[in-house]
Amino acid sequence: MAQKPSIPKGTRDFSPAEVAKRNYIFSIIKSNFEKFGFQPIETPTFENSETLMGKYGEEGDRLIFKILNSGNYFFNKNKIELPESIEVLQSNSAETISVNELVELNKFTGKISEKALRYDLTVPFARYVVQHQNEIEFPFKRYQIQPVWRADRPQKGRFREFYQCDADVVGSTSLWQEVELVQLYDSVFSALELEGVTIKINNRKILSGIAEVIGASDKLIDFTVALDKLDKIGEDGVKKEMVEKGISEAALEKVQPLFNFTGTIAEKIEKLSALLSSSPEGMKGVEELQFICDNIKVLGLDKSELDLDVTLARGLNYYTGAIFEVSAPKGVAMGSIGGGGRYDDLTGIFGLKNMSGVGISFGLDRIYLVLEELNLFPETVTSTSKALFLNFGQEEALYSMKTISQLRKEGIKVEMYPDNAKIGKQFQHADKRGIPFAVIVGGDEIANNQYALKDLASGEQKKVSLEELKELLK
Amino acid sequence: MAQKPSIPKGTRDFSPAEVAKRNYIFSIIKSNFEKFGFQPIETPTFENSETLMGKYGEEGDRLIFKILNSGNYFFNKNKIELPESIEVLQSNSAETISVNELVELNKFTGKISEKALRYDLTVPFARYVVQHQNEIEFPFKRYQIQPVWRADRPQKGRFREFYQCDADVVGSTSLWQEVELVQLYDSVFSALELEGVTIKINNRKILSGIAEVIGASDKLIDFTVALDKLDKIGEDGVKKEMVEKGISEAALEKVQPLFNFTGTIAEKIEKLSALLSSSPEGMKGVEELQFICDNIKVLGLDKSELDLDVTLARGLNYYTGAIFEVSAPKGVAMGSIGGGGRYDDLTGIFGLKNMSGVGISFGLDRIYLVLEELNLFPETVTSTSKALFLNFGQEEALYSMKTISQLRKEGIKVEMYPDNAKIGKQFQHADKRGIPFAVIVGGDEIANNQYALKDLASGEQKKVSLEELKELLK
Repeated sequence: MAQKPSIPKGTRDFSPAEVAKRNYIFSIIKSNFEKFGFQPIETPTFENSETLMGKYGEEGDRLIFKILNSGNYFFNKNKIELPESIEVLQSNSAETISVNELVELNKFTGKISEKALRYDLTVPFARYVVQHQNEIEFPFKRYQIQPVWRADRPQKGRFREFYQCDADVVGSTSLWQEVELVQLYDSVFSALELEGVTIKINNRKILSGIAEVIGASDKLIDFTVALDKLDKIGEDGVKKEMVEKGISEAALEKVQPLFNFTGTIAEKIEKLSALLSSSPEGMKGVEELQFICDNIKVLGLDKSELDLDVTLARGLNYYTGAIFEVSAPKGVAMGSIGGGGRYDDLTGIFGLKNMSGVGISFGLDRIYLVLEELNLFPETVTSTSKALFLNFGQEEALYSMKTISQLRKEGIKVEMYPDNAKIGKQFQHADKRGIPFAVIVGGDEIANNQYALKDLASGEQKKVSLEELKELLK
Repeated sequence: MAQKPSIPKGTRDFSPAEVAKRNYIFSIIKSNFEKFGFQPIETPTFENSETLMGKYGEEGDRLIFKILNSGNYFFNKNKIELPESIEVLQSNSAETISVNELVELNKFTGKISEKALRYDLTVPFARYVVQHQNEIEFPFKRYQIQPVWRADRPQKGRFREFYQCDADVVGSTSLWQEVELVQLYDSVFSALELEGVTIKINNRKILSGIAEVIGASDKLIDFTVALDKLDKIGEDGVKKEMVEKGISEAALEKVQPLFNFTGTIAEKIEKLSALLSSSPEGMKGVEELQFICDNIKVLGLDKSELDLDVTLARGLNYYTGAIFEVSAPKGVAMGSIGGGGRYDDLTGIFGLKNMSGVGISFGLDRIYLVLEELNLFPETVTSTSKALFLNFGQEEALYSMKTISQLRKEGIKVEMYPDNAKIGKQFQHADKRGIPFAVIVGGDEIANNQYALKDLASGEQKKVSLEELKELLK
């Protein structure tokens, strides 16, 4: 009985049409990364477990895919009794075990697994920078486009294997980099013909400043997590949550302007300056924002818009300066299609201090869905051949193959139907494959050094020379 | 104490220079695959274990990386006693366990692991074809360029993570496909400027025919495995091994021509015809070879040579018709840089019968080493910026950024040093990064709408306009 083929949940096969569209996005992101001076690196699919574990919080650790050590592993008979029968239960089972037992079990899985699949591109990048610090010339502008894996519960639009496209600079605190990253977002989305993208910007120091002003510095995370929900649960909901978390009504009064934070960027910055005047850290954040926004205003953006969004928090304990998030054009129901920010001590976990970094990421899957929804993939995005030469037997096939060799030397994608099948079947093949032209070579054509070229969309057919064929299929 | 960063053995980090060189090879392979009508698919990094296990022999199963099921797994307390302390031994430990114990252990690992990393691209391709058979238009020409993982003992040039680049056609038995695959090899290696590559061809039916003729059909595998060693252990060694395997001296006498098998392809085919005249299967193989070689002779090859190598066996229980192998130019000490062949029942394991396939593979890592050794990477293979704009402070930087934005719109890779650092440090940065030009913008230049462009190799410096700058950096 043959196996019914399937793939693990949360993973995907990509058809030729899908790969072509994905590669279209990748290649635009890549060429823009390089135009902006970023250079590619690649890191291994799996890292040593200790490189990854403990870097993404408890939840993250749980979502990291671990790889069994290779080779045949046996238990030491003196130390472990092999059970009569073995049953493994998931953590949501009714029957759980004690903490001590869990510790033992973790020791055990630690012994059978020492490697884990990449969970994001940031931690491997930090590891790379520290490991290769003597070969790297800083500031180091790197980009990385590779898949990552997370054992998340799969759902619509969320996969266990997906690509990340990251560009980061480490080794300089210059705010020109933030300016360039905003331009880079605009440059990529403009090249994708995606109009009306909003690049939202905020600053961690502004969030800290706000918390300081309201006397709730110790509640910064609660504050920002609640503020981040403004879009979803509204002002009342956010305030209710803040109060529940122990932030006073009086404090909320002070930050009332934040719940109705409209106007131009300049106006917003002015409001923030007033609000944060007593907080040196907050004012530093305002200053940084101002630098970025002022320079972007002078340099201009193409098809995108910059906006200051003071509710923007993202992974707060990660970023230390600018925070970016990109939202799809209005009218497209889609979460953020990119995000990033500055982090002051990325490489510290691996022993290299004082290495400030700033970076952004593009969400490939969501960008794909947005382009699909707005019908923005160019029709030319395909890897399909330009023409199918029909096959009428050995003599005709050899004549065709000679021509095909010449066309391919010019870089033209053409192919021959491999078998001398019924002509209807061959035309149908071209049609189903989406190949736009058929080339018919019979005795007549060979005798006259010609080709019958049929446009399969219009049905129009004409005799052409080799030179004309090259021209028409280019 | 910070962790000392490292990566798992057998894996690699790739620096920007290495990625650029690898991408140069990938992009030539890819564009040639597409010129020949192959279209890309991608399959998940991990497959269900049952898709992979049992497809690569016992040794292969052992080399497949298994992934631990995600989530927290606990033992059922009623069924297993957690040990006081746990020790896990490798199979080469002095202390082993009984077969029964091993069976239990395998049941156990089966419960904690249901997924495994892709071991090659062929089995996932077969799974893809069967799973998507209703969406696929046959014959299906697909290519796939993705990494695979094998828990092999790492050694020089052998890694645990490496790329395969495969092109296969399934759904037709036409020998034109073999002809095109030979051309495809030639087309790729010629585009890489690699002269003198030998594309060796053989046919499984010829090997079967030979075994039949010598009356040792049941010893086909022994015969071909020994014959395959002709280069390494010489005629005497091969014959000794064959005799040890029970092939008679009389039989070896009959195939004596095979141990000194020289001349043109036509001469070799003639010798084979004589040798195999009594074997219908052997003669079918000769006929297939003849078709391929005759047509290649008419169509011609660019920089490569075709040769008939009757010792060529490769994974014998896999191929059923043509067998290909590519060897690097003479003088380069390197194993095969590509291989492939026809397999008549690839998808049978997944329940789809009568689906003949033929394909070839390119060995990226070895091709890389060959190009490196022969110094064949073009100097232009780099992702480095064309020019570094030096940074002399806010006014100059903003002026530079305006120019940089315009250059990038033209697709020119340029960047600005992010900080207003000492000029020597900035020049050094360009130098170490391999950036060929520096652009110097001071008060003078701004006043005159000019740029000082310095060629960092020659030291030559001149003042240019924006238009000239665009022209020179293109």
